[in-house]
Amino acid sequence: MTMSKPYVVGIDIGGTNTVFGIVDARGTIIASGSIKTQKYSEVEDYVKNLSEELTKLIVQEKVADQITGIGVGAPNGNYYTGTIEFAPNLPWKGVVPLAQMLSEKTGYPVSLTNDANAAAIGEMTYGAARGIKDFIMITLGTGVGSGIVINGQLVYGHDGFAGELGHVIMRRGNGRLCGCGRTGCLEAYASATGVARTAREFLEIRNEQSLLRQIPIQDITSKDVYDAAIAGDKMAAEIFEYTGNMLGEAFADFVAFSSPKAIVIFGGLAKSGELIMKPIRESLDRNILPIYRGKVKVIPSELKESDAAVLGASALGWEAK
Amino acid sequence: MTMSKPYVVGIDIGGTNTVFGIVDARGTIIASGSIKTQKYSEVEDYVKNLSEELTKLIVQEKVADQITGIGVGAPNGNYYTGTIEFAPNLPWKGVVPLAQMLSEKTGYPVSLTNDANAAAIGEMTYGAARGIKDFIMITLGTGVGSGIVINGQLVYGHDGFAGELGHVIMRRGNGRLCGCGRTGCLEAYASATGVARTAREFLEIRNEQSLLRQIPIQDITSKDVYDAAIAGDKMAAEIFEYTGNMLGEAFADFVAFSSPKAIVIFGGLAKSGELIMKPIRESLDRNILPIYRGKVKVIPSELKESDAAVLGASALGWEAK
Repeated sequence: MTMSKPYVVGIDIGGTNTVFGIVDARGTIIASGSIKTQKYSEVEDYVKNLSEELTKLIVQEKVADQITGIGVGAPNGNYYTGTIEFAPNLPWKGVVPLAQMLSEKTGYPVSLTNDANAAAIGEMTYGAARGIKDFIMITLGTGVGSGIVINGQLVYGHDGFAGELGHVIMRRGNGRLCGCGRTGCLEAYASATGVARTAREFLEIRNEQSLLRQIPIQDITSKDVYDAAIAGDKMAAEIFEYTGNMLGEAFADFVAFSSPKAIVIFGGLAKSGELIMKPIRESLDRNILPIYRGKVKVIPSELKESDAAVLGASALGWEAK
Repeated sequence: MTMSKPYVVGIDIGGTNTVFGIVDARGTIIASGSIKTQKYSEVEDYVKNLSEELTKLIVQEKVADQITGIGVGAPNGNYYTGTIEFAPNLPWKGVVPLAQMLSEKTGYPVSLTNDANAAAIGEMTYGAARGIKDFIMITLGTGVGSGIVINGQLVYGHDGFAGELGHVIMRRGNGRLCGCGRTGCLEAYASATGVARTAREFLEIRNEQSLLRQIPIQDITSKDVYDAAIAGDKMAAEIFEYTGNMLGEAFADFVAFSSPKAIVIFGGLAKSGELIMKPIRESLDRNILPIYRGKVKVIPSELKESDAAVLGASALGWEAK
């Protein structure tokens, strides 16, 4: 890469914490810090404090004149406007012009998008999708998010909100209630919460023994299901198969849309490795339209989860104007 | 538009006929002709004859040195390679390097894509999608095809075969058998054939009277359903509602992918007007994720159906190299 200023800043705004880091062109985080998002009921105070902490870090690293730009990943972040719009898990209501506020305070150009899009850009810049021009990033966390890359460009859509693949409908008519208010969304099944719901359903409907019966049913998490599966529990393995099967069904439809070369899986569930990857691949192969069969790789993210949010956001900093 | 050569040629290759025309920058077809696709069991003979007929037309119009390029729309056409690949309804088997063959015979640059993509480019260049950078074209004909435009560019995918939205799964588990060998595809419900199948199902399952009962059940076509609906038949109207409802459900998922500003409907069924458009719009509004609600227009194509295939293909001629 030829660029006069060799560093970018990545900021990941989460409901609880905001993490930031200074990143070089190879994706190494040379320094990082964090503040508590929840502490700031007024966004002005938040931006002021974030800018001060970030400036301290930049001065400490002696890179003040070597920063190309700042990239921000935030829930409900709109790339076109640089605003955060009606984010249910952040303390600030309505439409917040965060990119502009942060640029005014820090003096650097700021680019902003939602967290799943930032992850996709990070994967393309530093991770498993390097050199791949057509791929879909699926983030399996508390929810199911996505970032779609077509011909090397992230898909934002006409309003900046494209790529809500956690909300395609997988079960029509009698699907699970989703946080979005509709029923049957992929997210209601394939998120960490969805996996826990599947566990509760299986435990209630079936009679067979399972390690999961040792846990109070309302307390079961996807981590418990993972631990039980690793310990050889048959029902836990079937919960992963059920989840992977649904993801494979969904991916077959995604492929019919943009015919990607790869689907990259990121987030907590992706760390379950072959427990989830194998049923996904088998289901995709079973459900895919024949003209696409054998052409699409399903691969795990290559970004370290603790770094990925900051790295993904930082990658956007290279194009901030 | 500033271009030295003011005309393009559009060629639409169908299973029965091949239609071609010389088109100006405003989308006026100044001259056209056709040959019978089916007559040529050898593709060499086909290309030779097509080139001769086309050259005759070009000479007759005195525009031989004013043609920018030739655009071709063909079933299973691959934009990247200029080949037609395993098209079930054409007489030539395997992979046919049609763009190259035609370019060698005519001396003009040739660009090729599938028919639904060509229709989308035509709509963007001359029709209802002028000035719209993000839209999805849905063609409702014998099958259901699609062309997806994101940020002003047609989506081809990594292999040239993106945009098979007729083959997303709308009914899982107990869906109708589709021509692709799978079950539950949108095409099995929302194509002209799908509408006729719905009519047969309704007639068999229900007892109420309908004008459609005057037609032998295996002979019913989507045109018959249209005629009955126009004549005030209640069951026929419900068949359109059923079809529109499913299209609206599908569109809600498409919107979650690329967040288009418009969905443009083209083809025989689109000509049914509000009979199909109203239930589509109502269903989309009911099924769409709240952040997109009210932002997406569903509009009919503005291209005359008899001209659209040639116009769409010709639009590709402007970028042929």
